[in-house]
Amino acid sequence: MKVFSTSFSLTSDERTEVSDITKLIHESIQQFPISNGIALINTLHTTCALFINEFQSALIDDLKGLIERLVPERGGYRHYDPRFSDCERGNAHAHLRAALLGRNIAVGLSNGELSLGRFQSVIFAELDGPRRREITVQVMGE
Amino acid sequence: MKVFSTSFSLTSDERTEVSDITKLIHESIQQFPISNGIALINTLHTTCALFINEFQSALIDDLKGLIERLVPERGGYRHYDPRFSDCERGNAHAHLRAALLGRNIAVGLSNGELSLGRFQSVIFAELDGPRRREITVQVMGE
Amino acid sequence: MKVFSTSFSLTSDERTEVSDITKLIHESIQQFPISNGIALINTLHTTCALFINEFQSALIDDLKGLIERLVPERGGYRHYDPRFSDCERGNAHAHLRAALLGRNIAVGLSNGELSLGRFQSVIFAELDGPRRREITVQVMGE
Repeated sequence: MKVFSTSFSLTSDERTEVSDITKLIHESIQQFPISNGIALINTLHTTCALFINEFQSALIDDLKGLIERLVPERGGYRHYDPRFSDCERGNAHAHLRAALLGRNIAVGLSNGELSLGRFQSVIFAELDGPRRREITVQVMGE
Repeated sequence: MKVFSTSFSLTSDERTEVSDITKLIHESIQQFPISNGIALINTLHTTCALFINEFQSALIDDLKGLIERLVPERGGYRHYDPRFSDCERGNAHAHLRAALLGRNIAVGLSNGELSLGRFQSVIFAELDGPRRREITVQVMGE
Repeated sequence: MKVFSTSFSLTSDERTEVSDITKLIHESIQQFPISNGIALINTLHTTCALFINEFQSALIDDLKGLIERLVPERGGYRHYDPRFSDCERGNAHAHLRAALLGRNIAVGLSNGELSLGRFQSVIFAELDGPRRREITVQVMGE
């Protein structure tokens, strides 16, 4: 049993930016001599999300619409109130959206490939951009 | 350390159908000679969800009510607009509901059993049925 | 490759109570001789949540506000209707909030430490308190 990990960074241009990182994850994994096991994909930040879904441009627009409707950017959050917080970024909505979308993926590896379906992409959502972010990929198996 | 994986399929009759698959997962796991480790439960599809909760019929009705309220089936999604998408199934709501509910479970295995509490079931939610789906179960440990 | 697991309990005083359990998780992990691998953090209950985010008091108030808005405590749930359910706790909202927030964390371990970012805490949300709860921590690696 071996354990390996690596990381890569992503840069965004927009306030909210959703990217398909499947190819970057594949490349990260293929450098390790592991055929069967699991891959953990994580990010060390609290205002972005990682999840698996279909990456289709109109659907991503729908997703952005949904999170703005459920967790509006201007929602009168206490996180911005100087009496309670020293937050200067105005990013409570990004924290809350991240709590709904998740940021932690565990996927099987078989024959050296991620076990993903035909329409499944690993998706990274920057919720408080533009920013540079680190994504970590850890692989365990044999 | 050993790694095994298997899969089984599920068929649904309804547009939205929520099933308790705990017994199927137990049966999948018991065929492998692993006492302690972890089990990853995943599905290779993007319009269904996997999560752990209590499986009680009235509560499942409440869950269906919640997802219809948060992500209505008829929500005017761009995913259906032929200018932006070739989606023919009208299933944006199913993708978005899957993003909220999750589709990725990692549970400990101890003494050959899933570490689940008394009221915990592994629940599969078909969000774009009726359809046949594949669930994969991967087990790592010793 | 070794597998270890442990658990600890948490007591809450409030109906909804959100706690930073990062330190407790660190202490749980440090008793095991594992440098690199993964940690699974789970709870065996269905009306509480586990997730990773920033633990900042005003932001936690915003999170409580969000879940009350999306899933109100008094939502006319069928789970309380004696015709459909023998639930006596009136806790459908807690089950549904748990379904949105998740209760399953897989984090990498490297050099004996959880791979968490500077602002990341492991957060436990009691959604049906006050209650005593069990959190399990399972570690695999070498």
